[in-house]
Amino acid sequence: MTAQKLNIGLFGFGCVGQGLYHVLKNSKGFTANISKIAIKDPHKKRSLPASCFTFDKAEILDNPDINVIVELIDDAEEAFRIVKEALSKGKHVVTANKKMLATHLEELLALTEQNNVSLLYEAACCGSIPIIRTLEEYYDNERIHSLSGIFNGTTNYILTKTISEKLSYAQALKQAQDKGFAETNPVSDVEGFDPKYKAIILALHAFGILARPEEILNVGITTLREEDIRYASEKGYKIKLVPTVKRFEDGSVGIFVLPRFITPTNPLYYVDNEFNGVLVDGDFSGEQFLKGRGAGGNPTGAAVLSDISALSFGYRYEFKKRHQAEKNTLNGNLVLKVYLRYQNPEDLTQLGIHTISEHYTSETYKYVVALADLEELKASSDYIREKGVFIATLDDYVELKEQKVKTVKREALLSI
Amino acid sequence: MTAQKLNIGLFGFGCVGQGLYHVLKNSKGFTANISKIAIKDPHKKRSLPASCFTFDKAEILDNPDINVIVELIDDAEEAFRIVKEALSKGKHVVTANKKMLATHLEELLALTEQNNVSLLYEAACCGSIPIIRTLEEYYDNERIHSLSGIFNGTTNYILTKTISEKLSYAQALKQAQDKGFAETNPVSDVEGFDPKYKAIILALHAFGILARPEEILNVGITTLREEDIRYASEKGYKIKLVPTVKRFEDGSVGIFVLPRFITPTNPLYYVDNEFNGVLVDGDFSGEQFLKGRGAGGNPTGAAVLSDISALSFGYRYEFKKRHQAEKNTLNGNLVLKVYLRYQNPEDLTQLGIHTISEHYTSETYKYVVALADLEELKASSDYIREKGVFIATLDDYVELKEQKVKTVKREALLSI
Repeated sequence: MTAQKLNIGLFGFGCVGQGLYHVLKNSKGFTANISKIAIKDPHKKRSLPASCFTFDKAEILDNPDINVIVELIDDAEEAFRIVKEALSKGKHVVTANKKMLATHLEELLALTEQNNVSLLYEAACCGSIPIIRTLEEYYDNERIHSLSGIFNGTTNYILTKTISEKLSYAQALKQAQDKGFAETNPVSDVEGFDPKYKAIILALHAFGILARPEEILNVGITTLREEDIRYASEKGYKIKLVPTVKRFEDGSVGIFVLPRFITPTNPLYYVDNEFNGVLVDGDFSGEQFLKGRGAGGNPTGAAVLSDISALSFGYRYEFKKRHQAEKNTLNGNLVLKVYLRYQNPEDLTQLGIHTISEHYTSETYKYVVALADLEELKASSDYIREKGVFIATLDDYVELKEQKVKTVKREALLSI
Repeated sequence: MTAQKLNIGLFGFGCVGQGLYHVLKNSKGFTANISKIAIKDPHKKRSLPASCFTFDKAEILDNPDINVIVELIDDAEEAFRIVKEALSKGKHVVTANKKMLATHLEELLALTEQNNVSLLYEAACCGSIPIIRTLEEYYDNERIHSLSGIFNGTTNYILTKTISEKLSYAQALKQAQDKGFAETNPVSDVEGFDPKYKAIILALHAFGILARPEEILNVGITTLREEDIRYASEKGYKIKLVPTVKRFEDGSVGIFVLPRFITPTNPLYYVDNEFNGVLVDGDFSGEQFLKGRGAGGNPTGAAVLSDISALSFGYRYEFKKRHQAEKNTLNGNLVLKVYLRYQNPEDLTQLGIHTISEHYTSETYKYVVALADLEELKASSDYIREKGVFIATLDDYVELKEQKVKTVKREALLSI
């Protein structure tokens, strides 16, 4: 098969856009032409001549010579308008915008089918790790049991620096931003929205599921305190923010994003700084692990480049798991084993805690190790943030709620 | 794209053949038909009815309804005859036979081009790790600096058991064979031929190089002794058998297989038992790491299945690195930093040792840490085995020989 000539219209020239430009310019044996770059801010200093840029998106979208749109802007809603228009006009699209994808997956898939075009987004999940392609092409006929990992470079960088190097949270965040790992708005990272979007995208390719962001719990790392770090260190754990997608015997699939205590037997223990890692557990392959740079212009640019290259060979995702006979369904009805640091016994009644196996209280530090109800946690995720409660899952324990769960009575919880 | 109907003729029904059969039968959403299975031994008890089998390869190769040959036999030369005939007859081929591939790569590539057919072999390298597809599709436009890893499950299993669990070499080998990890003939594994074949195959996809097995040094683990294990443990190293493919600034590429002392900062440190791991260092992506099951019927069967599935969508390797403008060439003219346990000072003069930085001698245990000349080691690989010399590379140190190397005079070596 010979490569098709691609004429690219690029939206966005931030960290990843410039990374792509650099990667494309220095890549051997491949020439794709960036015809025009659409940018928003006319006052920002740019590294290329003014003639490369436009402020009018129509100049790209209405140009029939441009057959590929590469969308690398921050604003998810504006990105969606651009991508929608591009697909409708029969242009292929490469994007790294996980929020846009996770929020509009169903509509985007319909658009690609209607217009017979390709939408690729390897760079949207885990930077340079080729996880979407691996799920699509390698696991297409293998049943996957679970998929988890470290999908967010910013939080992993912050956790590494605060835990191993004792930096303050603010110092660590500042470092991550200075190095270009952190997104423009860190809230999406540190509160676990960004890894949730990625988990939703990967759940489509691994299990054929279309989940909506509002259906999935995400708890981040903003409430982490010194005591939690000490507790974890004493037990030999590291703390990582881990999105989990797990299939149960009945074909239902649970998805959630929570901090997790990780033991040294888990490969994620050794994924530090801005690196990402993905664990895939399959029927035949067993446990596979992929690790690579999860953030930064060049690694993400390289992932965009691999999509552009694939496009030149006519590649598109087949979504094989979506079309398989065995249908998986989203299931929020789960219990998780958690460590939960709280302020007042009231917190426990609010958060759906069952079967307490350990509790500790002192004047300044109170925690339980217990089973928690995922749906109740989800209903209270604002409460968790506001009250400064820190939760981390333990030991990979997650089960369907049908399992016997001993409910702890409200009075018993309040008397702890 | 809709999947093409595949009619498979299978050669071999050993560990991987049965794994494939199991995986295919239990895989959801995919049906490929195994028309006939060719086997050699009429006396072996089989798990399927006799009508599934034939002892006459022509019954498969001459059947025009069979459009795919899956070759999973042990004998590399017989495999080559089968694959050659199949390709010549316009049939696609999936194989896991690394020795056959590494020995006949050039001729096989020519045959696929002449007959316009596809030859896929993901299962030939690192079991369930999709490394060839990743190199072909993800790294196609990115310059790779180095590729190394643990490519052989048998030796890694033996090293893990002898070092961490203090089993004897013979016990560990027996366990590996009982578990179905070890090949019929362990010599290819334990003397490093098997990982060398894999390194040669991966060097084609990563660097576009066609190396011949006889050009590449392989030193295995048969000479490992208690003292070497103790030395490594005291320094905090694990010992792994590591094939290395490394590109230098001048575009030349070195390939060798040697035991290596691994520090805990290297992800390969955590790859134990039958697991394999691959480290890829690229220009833009940085360091990526893949880990998965490197041996066993099901993981390897899953890799074969992924090739069969890809075939049904018309997939073939493009060998993009082979066709790129920048040509890489094989270079054996390297120096390596090694730990070398020897018996007699004569050994050192024989093995091309330079610039000794440490030496230790007692009545029963003598070693140097020094620079070694790769070409001289290669010329003496029989000597290494026969004299029970153990060599392991250190610190990832490998350089072009143009670098200043202080030659140690013969007299100085003999006086150690």
